[in-house]
Amino acid sequence: MIQAVSECAVNGRLGEIMSDDKQPRRRRGGGREARRATRQSTSVEQLGYITRKIPDFNVMSEEGLALIEANADMILEEVGIEFRDDNEALQMWRDAGADVDGERVRFPKGLCRDLVKTAPREFTQKARNDERSVQIGGRNTVFAPVYGPPFVRDLEGGRRYATLEDFENFVKLSYMTPAMHHSGGTVCEPVDVAVNKRHLDMIYSHIRYSDKPFMGSVTAPERAADTVDMAKILFGDEFVDANTVLISLINANSPMVFDDTMLGALKVYARANQASIVTPFILSGAMAPVTVAGTLAITLAEALAGAAFTQLCRSGAPVVFGSFASSMSMQSGAPTFGTPEPALVLYGAAALARRLGIPFRSGGSLCGSKIPDAQAAYESAQTMLPTLLGGVNFVLHSAGWLEGGLVSSYEKFIMDADQLGMMQVLSGGIDLSVDAQALDAIREVGPGNHFLGSAHTQAHFETAFYRSSIADNSSFEQWEAEGSMDAYQRANKIYKQMLVDYTAPEIDPGVDEALQSYVAKKKASMPDSFT
Amino acid sequence: MIQAVSECAVNGRLGEIMSDDKQPRRRRGGGREARRATRQSTSVEQLGYITRKIPDFNVMSEEGLALIEANADMILEEVGIEFRDDNEALQMWRDAGADVDGERVRFPKGLCRDLVKTAPREFTQKARNDERSVQIGGRNTVFAPVYGPPFVRDLEGGRRYATLEDFENFVKLSYMTPAMHHSGGTVCEPVDVAVNKRHLDMIYSHIRYSDKPFMGSVTAPERAADTVDMAKILFGDEFVDANTVLISLINANSPMVFDDTMLGALKVYARANQASIVTPFILSGAMAPVTVAGTLAITLAEALAGAAFTQLCRSGAPVVFGSFASSMSMQSGAPTFGTPEPALVLYGAAALARRLGIPFRSGGSLCGSKIPDAQAAYESAQTMLPTLLGGVNFVLHSAGWLEGGLVSSYEKFIMDADQLGMMQVLSGGIDLSVDAQALDAIREVGPGNHFLGSAHTQAHFETAFYRSSIADNSSFEQWEAEGSMDAYQRANKIYKQMLVDYTAPEIDPGVDEALQSYVAKKKASMPDSFT
Repeated sequence: MIQAVSECAVNGRLGEIMSDDKQPRRRRGGGREARRATRQSTSVEQLGYITRKIPDFNVMSEEGLALIEANADMILEEVGIEFRDDNEALQMWRDAGADVDGERVRFPKGLCRDLVKTAPREFTQKARNDERSVQIGGRNTVFAPVYGPPFVRDLEGGRRYATLEDFENFVKLSYMTPAMHHSGGTVCEPVDVAVNKRHLDMIYSHIRYSDKPFMGSVTAPERAADTVDMAKILFGDEFVDANTVLISLINANSPMVFDDTMLGALKVYARANQASIVTPFILSGAMAPVTVAGTLAITLAEALAGAAFTQLCRSGAPVVFGSFASSMSMQSGAPTFGTPEPALVLYGAAALARRLGIPFRSGGSLCGSKIPDAQAAYESAQTMLPTLLGGVNFVLHSAGWLEGGLVSSYEKFIMDADQLGMMQVLSGGIDLSVDAQALDAIREVGPGNHFLGSAHTQAHFETAFYRSSIADNSSFEQWEAEGSMDAYQRANKIYKQMLVDYTAPEIDPGVDEALQSYVAKKKASMPDSFT
Repeated sequence: MIQAVSECAVNGRLGEIMSDDKQPRRRRGGGREARRATRQSTSVEQLGYITRKIPDFNVMSEEGLALIEANADMILEEVGIEFRDDNEALQMWRDAGADVDGERVRFPKGLCRDLVKTAPREFTQKARNDERSVQIGGRNTVFAPVYGPPFVRDLEGGRRYATLEDFENFVKLSYMTPAMHHSGGTVCEPVDVAVNKRHLDMIYSHIRYSDKPFMGSVTAPERAADTVDMAKILFGDEFVDANTVLISLINANSPMVFDDTMLGALKVYARANQASIVTPFILSGAMAPVTVAGTLAITLAEALAGAAFTQLCRSGAPVVFGSFASSMSMQSGAPTFGTPEPALVLYGAAALARRLGIPFRSGGSLCGSKIPDAQAAYESAQTMLPTLLGGVNFVLHSAGWLEGGLVSSYEKFIMDADQLGMMQVLSGGIDLSVDAQALDAIREVGPGNHFLGSAHTQAHFETAFYRSSIADNSSFEQWEAEGSMDAYQRANKIYKQMLVDYTAPEIDPGVDEALQSYVAKKKASMPDSFT
């Protein structure tokens, strides 16, 4: 039995030796902001965005990347990209020297790349609490919550349409999550509010219930304009023109199409010096060839065209190269997540974005499972770890995503948030300081003895390891005595307690009043529309 | 709602377009063996070991690695390693020029490294079906099942002591798993068989119920000798002396101790030209400092001393640098898994093994959870993906591990096995062939159309994406109609069906009889012992 014992858990032995009580949950980060944990205006200690100290993982050689770039150039030059129902956009492309045939735009070799050169390699998105401002691009990684689901789910309530209350809850949970650096955008669709008015409530919620940076509405140009107006009430007109305070998700209608809705929102934001994430949305086999190489070429071509267009709107406007790519079930046509092919696309696209010289968005905690079970966790981890190792700069859907993005899950949010804390530690790499080498401790303890009582261990044990908020590492007997709960049940308790503990960050009462007044006036100006 | 829709699932649309029925499960691998899928003597199509085409992920610089090496040298030279209760080993070290003080052996600078130079950089472990032989070292990765648990668990039976029937079941499941390249060793402890006899049943099970390579007994030198005897019955005396047909797990009693049991088994195997995996077993904070750098230095020192000792036993004997390292809960002393610190240790140790020039063992699908829930899956994926990306050559515990290694889980085995298939695809990297670039398909389809009907998609869709055996990607409505099962429940059905479908590989009746006769004779030669 020696082998069995030495290769498995030794709970008993260590449990006897260690007798300290629960320690305060530990915070550590790899970013230069990490140690600036702030306590200002809230009791929640925050980590700040990540600055990665570990290298980026590349799966492709320089020759491979150059081959994909050549293929994307072919698409831009020969096949072209359609800019639909937007004559202004077509005229802008004509003026820039592109070949416009109907709605099809073909780009002379190098045009898009030349235009993108004026976009910043990285930029700061300001938050109303400047301690929460994030740096997007370079070696930085910013985590933002799930975006877009019309449904929510929790253990007792099951799956149901999302409401504004759910929306506010997810904003509050993001606010309270130390490794969540961003408040995100449509954390769920508040379907109890009219389609033409809900953006006002969403933007107000992000501003009022959090002090982290947030995303703008993109469902219509006038809603984007409302978002900019509200940002100006919060930050002031001049500040907004000089700084990026909004980042917004502009999805392509892949393959090789941009529509007027997205182009309309893009124009509003770019002209206001606000950031756009131009994201080809590709299920390989449907919106691109079934291959990784084919998916990468279309992704790069669409991102290049969209990013170049932002620079036609305003030279120097911040833009992010986005990629949402997954595989699908060829039996049902359903998207599949956490499989190896999208991970390879992610690594490849991240490297292409680095060569292009603008920030990159991809990844998240994606999964196809209907509930936060083992499937959800395997798939999410197999997306999130490539996200970090690949060097993604802006990570949408980093917590809460369930059922292929149809559901924002309360418990999954808690599970994913715990993983984000781990990613933040991992990104810090290996400490090689004299203290971390611990040679004196090794000399002191020597063969056959344990390190638990050594001065070095005593000095560091509170902060030595990441402490999961959700994992149960107690003995089988203790776990059974406490009700044999799975991670789903434990996460349920945690999210509820967080909402009980939540207190809103302070806000200038005059600003709050002005925002509420703006929302009320806008809502009164038009009838409800639910289409 | 456009944004919400475009950022989330599009089941409906694709579901309508795709109408083909379920396809046969697809097999693809990154190794040069991958396409040699064999059908010989069984209906199970196998993948063959992995040859990684993606680069190894390094978190440490050359300077950092050299620093750890210098610290390990200090440990070997100044602190020393204890070889306990084994006078022969101490004399061998004296003869080799080491400084032996009692049981403490101190090594002149460079001695261990010089000795290890005679160990092979990589070697073949022969299986009785040569199609299943594996190459250990270099760019190859071999997956082996869980090792050591005294308990098993499944959905209906719960947690219970393992029996020989369970042992045989896990051997059968490994045999039937395409991405499981190895039959492993103590897939669970058959506690219904006497301690001094169970190794005979275990070795016989591996030989009879599988034709993949397997591991030897290490719980006593005479049991190691029995293992070699049985291998000789199977392969012939001369073949065993000239080839590696066994690989065995030799754990250090970390920190910095080898005991007589492990040394005894090591000597038997090394002298018979069989492979040893010398594995420092470290929970940081207990058997090493709480830091990654301290853990790496002790790991390297112990592995160097153990690997060098194999070469004193027989120059050229195959040896693997092992590392089992995890963090622990400082509240309870329980080991914790899937946290960032052990992942950093793994990346660092893998790089140290590459510099040393011998194969590396680490990782697996490790977790601390009591059941195969989301915790188990997050932790396992956060260990397995680093295992593949770090470049581990031999992966013990790659499927079935639960509860910190106390439990072999049937359902977890199925879940992990599915992940191994994904790792095998991932290891193949990105296909950049002209066909994979799919430029003709892109030209043919053009903007706004879909690729589902294109000739390229039709030609490739059956093999384009990894097909999970366990993930449910159907619609919410369909999933609900089918009983709202979670991954745990689906895995339960799969493992049971596999055991129903199992048929044993053929074996020479004379060999089988000789093996059974050997086991019977050995068992009759001594009374049962349960200690």
